[in-house]
Amino acid sequence: MSALLESYIAGQWFRAQDEGEPVVDAVTGEEVARVSSRGLDYAALVNHARSVGAPAIQALTFHERAGLLKSLAKHLGGVKDEFYALSARTGATRRDSMVDIDGGIGTVFSYASKGTRELPNDTIVLDGRFEPLGKQGTFLGQHIYISRPGVAVQINAFNFPVWGMLEKLAPAFLAGLPSIVKPASQTAYLTEAVVRRILESGILPEGSIQLVCGSAGTLLDELTEQDCVAFTGSAHTAAILRNHSSVLHGGVRLGVEADSLNSAILGPDVMTTDPEFDLFVKSVVTEMTVKAGQKCTAIRRVLVPVDIADEVVDAISAKLAKVTVGNPSDDSVRMGALASLAQRDEVRKAVEALGNAADIVFGDPNQVDVVGADAEKGAFLSPVLLRARPGAVEPHDIEPFGPVATVLSYGSIAEAVELAARGRGSLVVSLVSHDPQVARDVALGVAPWHGRLLVLDRDDAGESTGHGSPLPVLVHGGPGRAGGGEELGGIRAVLHHMQRTAIQGSPDMLTAVTGQWFTGSRRRGGEVHPFRKSLAELKIGDSIESDSRQVTLDDIDHFAEFTGDTFYAHTDPEAAAANALFGGIVAHGYLVVSLAAGLFVEPNPGPVLANFGVDNLRFLTPVKAEDTIRVTLTVKQIIPRSSADYGEVRWDAVVINQEGAAVATYDVLTLVAKTWPQEGQN
Amino acid sequence: MSALLESYIAGQWFRAQDEGEPVVDAVTGEEVARVSSRGLDYAALVNHARSVGAPAIQALTFHERAGLLKSLAKHLGGVKDEFYALSARTGATRRDSMVDIDGGIGTVFSYASKGTRELPNDTIVLDGRFEPLGKQGTFLGQHIYISRPGVAVQINAFNFPVWGMLEKLAPAFLAGLPSIVKPASQTAYLTEAVVRRILESGILPEGSIQLVCGSAGTLLDELTEQDCVAFTGSAHTAAILRNHSSVLHGGVRLGVEADSLNSAILGPDVMTTDPEFDLFVKSVVTEMTVKAGQKCTAIRRVLVPVDIADEVVDAISAKLAKVTVGNPSDDSVRMGALASLAQRDEVRKAVEALGNAADIVFGDPNQVDVVGADAEKGAFLSPVLLRARPGAVEPHDIEPFGPVATVLSYGSIAEAVELAARGRGSLVVSLVSHDPQVARDVALGVAPWHGRLLVLDRDDAGESTGHGSPLPVLVHGGPGRAGGGEELGGIRAVLHHMQRTAIQGSPDMLTAVTGQWFTGSRRRGGEVHPFRKSLAELKIGDSIESDSRQVTLDDIDHFAEFTGDTFYAHTDPEAAAANALFGGIVAHGYLVVSLAAGLFVEPNPGPVLANFGVDNLRFLTPVKAEDTIRVTLTVKQIIPRSSADYGEVRWDAVVINQEGAAVATYDVLTLVAKTWPQEGQN
Repeated sequence: MSALLESYIAGQWFRAQDEGEPVVDAVTGEEVARVSSRGLDYAALVNHARSVGAPAIQALTFHERAGLLKSLAKHLGGVKDEFYALSARTGATRRDSMVDIDGGIGTVFSYASKGTRELPNDTIVLDGRFEPLGKQGTFLGQHIYISRPGVAVQINAFNFPVWGMLEKLAPAFLAGLPSIVKPASQTAYLTEAVVRRILESGILPEGSIQLVCGSAGTLLDELTEQDCVAFTGSAHTAAILRNHSSVLHGGVRLGVEADSLNSAILGPDVMTTDPEFDLFVKSVVTEMTVKAGQKCTAIRRVLVPVDIADEVVDAISAKLAKVTVGNPSDDSVRMGALASLAQRDEVRKAVEALGNAADIVFGDPNQVDVVGADAEKGAFLSPVLLRARPGAVEPHDIEPFGPVATVLSYGSIAEAVELAARGRGSLVVSLVSHDPQVARDVALGVAPWHGRLLVLDRDDAGESTGHGSPLPVLVHGGPGRAGGGEELGGIRAVLHHMQRTAIQGSPDMLTAVTGQWFTGSRRRGGEVHPFRKSLAELKIGDSIESDSRQVTLDDIDHFAEFTGDTFYAHTDPEAAAANALFGGIVAHGYLVVSLAAGLFVEPNPGPVLANFGVDNLRFLTPVKAEDTIRVTLTVKQIIPRSSADYGEVRWDAVVINQEGAAVATYDVLTLVAKTWPQEGQN
Repeated sequence: MSALLESYIAGQWFRAQDEGEPVVDAVTGEEVARVSSRGLDYAALVNHARSVGAPAIQALTFHERAGLLKSLAKHLGGVKDEFYALSARTGATRRDSMVDIDGGIGTVFSYASKGTRELPNDTIVLDGRFEPLGKQGTFLGQHIYISRPGVAVQINAFNFPVWGMLEKLAPAFLAGLPSIVKPASQTAYLTEAVVRRILESGILPEGSIQLVCGSAGTLLDELTEQDCVAFTGSAHTAAILRNHSSVLHGGVRLGVEADSLNSAILGPDVMTTDPEFDLFVKSVVTEMTVKAGQKCTAIRRVLVPVDIADEVVDAISAKLAKVTVGNPSDDSVRMGALASLAQRDEVRKAVEALGNAADIVFGDPNQVDVVGADAEKGAFLSPVLLRARPGAVEPHDIEPFGPVATVLSYGSIAEAVELAARGRGSLVVSLVSHDPQVARDVALGVAPWHGRLLVLDRDDAGESTGHGSPLPVLVHGGPGRAGGGEELGGIRAVLHHMQRTAIQGSPDMLTAVTGQWFTGSRRRGGEVHPFRKSLAELKIGDSIESDSRQVTLDDIDHFAEFTGDTFYAHTDPEAAAANALFGGIVAHGYLVVSLAAGLFVEPNPGPVLANFGVDNLRFLTPVKAEDTIRVTLTVKQIIPRSSADYGEVRWDAVVINQEGAAVATYDVLTLVAKTWPQEGQN
């Protein structure tokens, strides 16, 4: 008997109290492992995540969490070969395994990078700008995202045992949530191997990740209003989860990503001689055969202009004929086995049902030539292409989760959109077209029904990642049948795991609560110019109010001549007077900010290393000749960089005129050294 | 017998096929109206919204929709007096009615304003920046929000018959969705009156709003994957909706805002002599008595430091003693009636249940002095304050939906946070404190459990809108018991009604699909400088590549002297060389953008009226003496303003050096006239 997979709970590996159910090799039919969670203490599992995992992660800043994810991704990359060996037993070819294993590790790298670049080095995120709630400026509102004191339960599908886990784990971890991973039993041995490596590495804080091999048992019963469940799998199971008391009554958040009837549309502009024709055919064949079509994003419906449908069917069939099916360890094999014999039976049944409305034009679901394996013992299946008869309904409703697709023809773009929509919500649709107008019409028509849309043509084909690949930086999920959830999408997925809360208060209180400076909040003057303070010394609210400077007509004339910016508003009194926005000669906006810099700068070498940018510059009141301006600069946000000896400081800049009216407002972005020798210490 | 309220479906008023159920005046017990939806064709209702309403709204841009909302708000403001008369019959005082009626109209105004200022004059919204998906720049990703071809069903609570409808209708309409409004029967006569005025005005396109007075019947059965339901009401009804087949299996999106056990926390820093003590007491009394406590945001749990609890109880009781209860039409009356006798019975039962764990310290649920009305016929109730005994559980679980609150005492900030969290998720919490550290500790502790947090102190009290008021610009909703939904929050609520889709493609295709210019997309040169083109003539991608200019050491010296920006990197060769980021004298960033403006500007009067700002300016490569720069400017986005004879044009600016390296990138924001006389036509 093979080994019983273990679960990991509360810091220990747990072995079930029975022998478990067998899981077999998809290629050879041999037993790979046994799976059971009998006797597992689900309450202890959840309690450990909540009381040990969540506090440990939430004690770290986003940048610290991102740093751990980066270490983890590197570590897994170093030991990935052993995952490949196990992956082959799931029926996956080497290319299939890359999508799962390297794709999963790449997703962790992506979150490490986004977490560092797009989140503050803090534990809360500000959402949007502040809202003034009163005219005096004493009452403001600001939305923040904050970590929940809960757990993230992740119920994964069998088809991506590595990627499926990591694409949920990485954003949850960045969001401060510990993960409880529940893989599908069929391929849990691969997930278990990865979790062992994660735990052995000791990179993530204890309690960050726990594993349930076997049934989820009463896991959901233990969840409450700060917890969430992310599910990938069938619509059937999704409905059961939606109906669970914890979701109906307990406030548990449920996100669903369900298999869907994705389509690919060939644009009406494409001729058989165009490169787009070949791109389309290749894309369909790829999506039918990668992972033996066991992808929630695979193309199930092939929508083609009626005039060209015969040619498309012939071209796809010709390419499918070259696909070698068999043992993934054989180098000549292009497509491996389905995950199990039961899975193959399901697909055969689906093809039979499709037969009511479509004819098989390539392949035989009951016969396949197999290389390097026993066709009786492994879950092998030939690719099968069908062609729908007019008015067919079944192709929009039946999902064969294997190497099967159906060609449907359309007459107009409106009809193509309507057919795509009949999938009642899908994860992804692709359009192959080189006509921008076709792209716009199709894209805006189908977008409401999809989470992702790929427009493929000769221009992007070289770099395209393909129809079937969810990317960490783009949302993965879709409306309706696809489950209505959203995963990935960069930081969006992190924020989905957090609570958004509106905070109302005085500027001082908002500054205190958020750690960022709000307009109207107290400024701290002082004898030391804030440009002479290192990151360690600077405080939120540190401020300098500059001297004032008069802007003369000579200055404006001179600046126009020097820079070449001779726009009439700066040079031609009559024309400038005719422009209602100015009513006479005005100073250049760039002159105003240049003079402001001259007013606030501290010229000597110091901790402020560079000004690397300006954000949200708005010119609010024109500066006329003889106006006097001055500027106030205030520390708004401090972001230490974990990997450098400096950090970013965002300064609030307000330039006012002699009447106190705001002339320009903007944020100045600087790099500031973490430490700097005190004066006289050099 | 009073009049039967009608429903409005498919362009006609519909009268039910029976006599309906009576609804009575909360103050006098007289029958006000009868309500029934018997015989209503729910399929026709949904079909009309989908086939007539949605296309009509979605044919308009966001700015056009916002303009209609503004007209609508003005129109309703002009006829609001009649709503006040009806509102009094619900038991509301004039102040209560203002919250409902003026608050509702104000929410529509707010959406009109936000829609114009924060959304493009278009039908899709870009979400976030584009994501480069390949190194060559030929494959990008961009998220968009797009309208769904569906309907928004809005099931409202009895307590805010006007605001409850309008706060859901306004964001749905901006998002392109037609609304089907289903008011609670108890106060449907007021909602019906407002809907009649909306329809009579003819401001909104046909199909934008329909009304169901009476039961929702089979309405939800008609909904599919592009539709959404927004529900405000009890957790019990919310669970029934969550369990509906359309939600479990049909992909219908459900948002819930449920009553919750909101709390107010008095900071441990507050002494009885502090202004915050009075603010706290006043806030509790206000929230107990406005709308007779029938607000989902009312304070139910009053958390106070144990040392000061007696004083708080005394002060609240003293203030409650001054609250006159009675007929809202009597000027001396401070608190009106509950919505119905049945509602009063519910509250009495809740107070009885609270008696297991708390003692009544003010008021008698069975006795109240009433001014100007018959205490037997109206649904009057005295305010009731309870004080919890140690370890009380019931106050965290039982919600008396009336003028009732319970005082609980705490020992430490951690305990205060823990008590607030025991509400298992609430809409709002307030903290009254003048100590920034207390504010931070409490706020970050309770934020995960709340949708909104008010920090009240002497500084913001004058402008504070109070604990109980949801604001259109801030999110309204909360986790767990509060339903887990989010309404309002400005444009956030609009986007919740739309589909987010990731579009992948070449820059040209993304430009074609979105109508905005993407880096790498084709630029259109030409003989005419784009600054000479009016808004009507400008096209996305119109571009100018400038001449080049050498930046000399003299230029840098001169700029430093002229502006006063003598930062050492521009003036001191040795010190500049010691800064690793520069390695020698570099030009000022402001000099670079000033010279760039000189390179791209077209000096003569023309359609470009002004440069009103700069966004996302980043200095990427230092410019050294003798470097040569040039700039390319490209039309990225065009936003016509509906209310002006000009619009906004956002230009992509890239400054490169002699080696082609990007020196600076930014967006230039200009105002451009919609039309401009052709050359030679003047």
